Amino acid sequence: MTDSIVINEVGPRDGLQSQKKHLDLDQRKSLVDALVRSGLKNIEIGSFVSPKAVPQMAGTGELLQSLSQANDLTYSVLVPNQKGYELARMAGAKAVALVVSATETMSQKNIRMSVEQSFATAEGIIHEAKLDSISIQAYLSVAFVCPFEGSVSASLVRDQARQLAEFGADEIVIADTIGAADPAAVRDLMNGLVEEYGSDRLACHFHDTRAMGLANVYAAIESGVRKFDSSIGGLGGCPFAPGAKGNVATEDVVMMCHQMGFETGVDISILLKVVELVSSLTESQQGGRAHYWLSNNVA
Amino acid sequence: MTDSIVINEVGPRDGLQSQKKHLDLDQRKSLVDALVRSGLKNIEIGSFVSPKAVPQMAGTGELLQSLSQANDLTYSVLVPNQKGYELARMAGAKAVALVVSATETMSQKNIRMSVEQSFATAEGIIHEAKLDSISIQAYLSVAFVCPFEGSVSASLVRDQARQLAEFGADEIVIADTIGAADPAAVRDLMNGLVEEYGSDRLACHFHDTRAMGLANVYAAIESGVRKFDSSIGGLGGCPFAPGAKGNVATEDVVMMCHQMGFETGVDISILLKVVELVSSLTESQQGGRAHYWLSNNVA
Repeated sequence: MTDSIVINEVGPRDGLQSQKKHLDLDQRKSLVDALVRSGLKNIEIGSFVSPKAVPQMAGTGELLQSLSQANDLTYSVLVPNQKGYELARMAGAKAVALVVSATETMSQKNIRMSVEQSFATAEGIIHEAKLDSISIQAYLSVAFVCPFEGSVSASLVRDQARQLAEFGADEIVIADTIGAADPAAVRDLMNGLVEEYGSDRLACHFHDTRAMGLANVYAAIESGVRKFDSSIGGLGGCPFAPGAKGNVATEDVVMMCHQMGFETGVDISILLKVVELVSSLTESQQGGRAHYWLSNNVA
Repeated sequence: MTDSIVINEVGPRDGLQSQKKHLDLDQRKSLVDALVRSGLKNIEIGSFVSPKAVPQMAGTGELLQSLSQANDLTYSVLVPNQKGYELARMAGAKAVALVVSATETMSQKNIRMSVEQSFATAEGIIHEAKLDSISIQAYLSVAFVCPFEGSVSASLVRDQARQLAEFGADEIVIADTIGAADPAAVRDLMNGLVEEYGSDRLACHFHDTRAMGLANVYAAIESGVRKFDSSIGGLGGCPFAPGAKGNVATEDVVMMCHQMGFETGVDISILLKVVELVSSLTESQQGGRAHYWLSNNVA
């Protein structure tokens, strides 16, 4: 166990894709640059999905190429399928996020494939990525609760995680896509996965829909997880679940980690300025409690 | 360890005392009655403090006497000092919440006594209460972080809890008055206290200022705590800490507990109606995520 926690900032992708106001490439670049200045080293900057379906993410290749490169920075891009992977590779991506769903209905709704097809696709992409020296973050979405099928069995998720590990995914990300997990379920699932794969090969992705976002992060930390997705200002949501709120806010996760004695490499005072930038860019009034608290208090 | 969690609803006191809009006695009674209908058995209905300082709580004695009595209901009232205790006793209170602060500055600001004076007062009241067959919930406020003195040492809190236990307090309530605790600190403190006093003699009181409210509840549950304060709709706040948000919302705590497999005796669908009643009575737009989520979703 290290005393460091890695934050994978997903605001420029998971956050912006759900905003009514679409940012242009300059604005998206200014956001990513600001996040880098706060000390974040892992940033999901966009996705290679159909620009008709998700116009907010159009031009992700151009964005990727425009960013300042440094050896300690990892810009990842999300791909839904083989075609997306090809586009990511051609754009020079070094890290790719690949999503498979734990349940049949979610898989059909999200990427119009059966779970079996999506795992076969994932296997092919992971093998290619090995040859291309591209690292793969394999997301297992709706890993706790599916908005269509309800509770997801932990043993199913363990089996699916094992498949992704056997395919050779560099990292398996357990995603509570709609923010419906509770910390006891997180503890029970992640205890077993950390034992099986170790902290280095795992990450968790939580939303704060039911106010349990940080409780779930804490439960996963207690299980040994040391890498978390989060979104600046708590931007985000899930287009498939009405009422679903955003990802856990990066500033909240960073505040909690620092308070618990973990290092993140993030300068929280710079991060809070990025929250303000996000508010101005998106016309969103979102923002984690850390922003509210730290802007108003001295204690 | 039981699989039940007891909710002590503090909205009618900790919630209403910080509202700009003052409720009359009929409104306060309608709120308490609605909370009882939801299945809550433990309700802090008000306080015996100076009506000049806290006009929202004037008439608590009259309120107490107007409530329907049943053997399985516990209505508690907060008292700041000996005089408040006398008033509570004369009004027929069977359960009294007594507050001492862990730090000198908070003690002076809150009740204009030194910590030593407040503990001496608490000792006297607890002894009297034994003779009067009144049960005492002894609150240790700012038990993690003080808005004036910063971090509070866990060993100081352990010593103070021991004093309260030796005085004969029926229950010791560890209170994160300004909502600045983190779950690792909660775990570390409560592990020791549960070992020393057992689950039956302890409770925790959390605010959600920093988004860690439910994380702290979860950490305390993991330590063995089985009784929690919470406030309907997340009403509340702390007059001494600008930016401090309300207590953890009862509906959020109940939702998390139920999801984790604990019984609370609360009917969440009735509870959500009480959230709406609170919003209409207080003109507050507060309300836990559970209300938002469960009103908009089927999953």
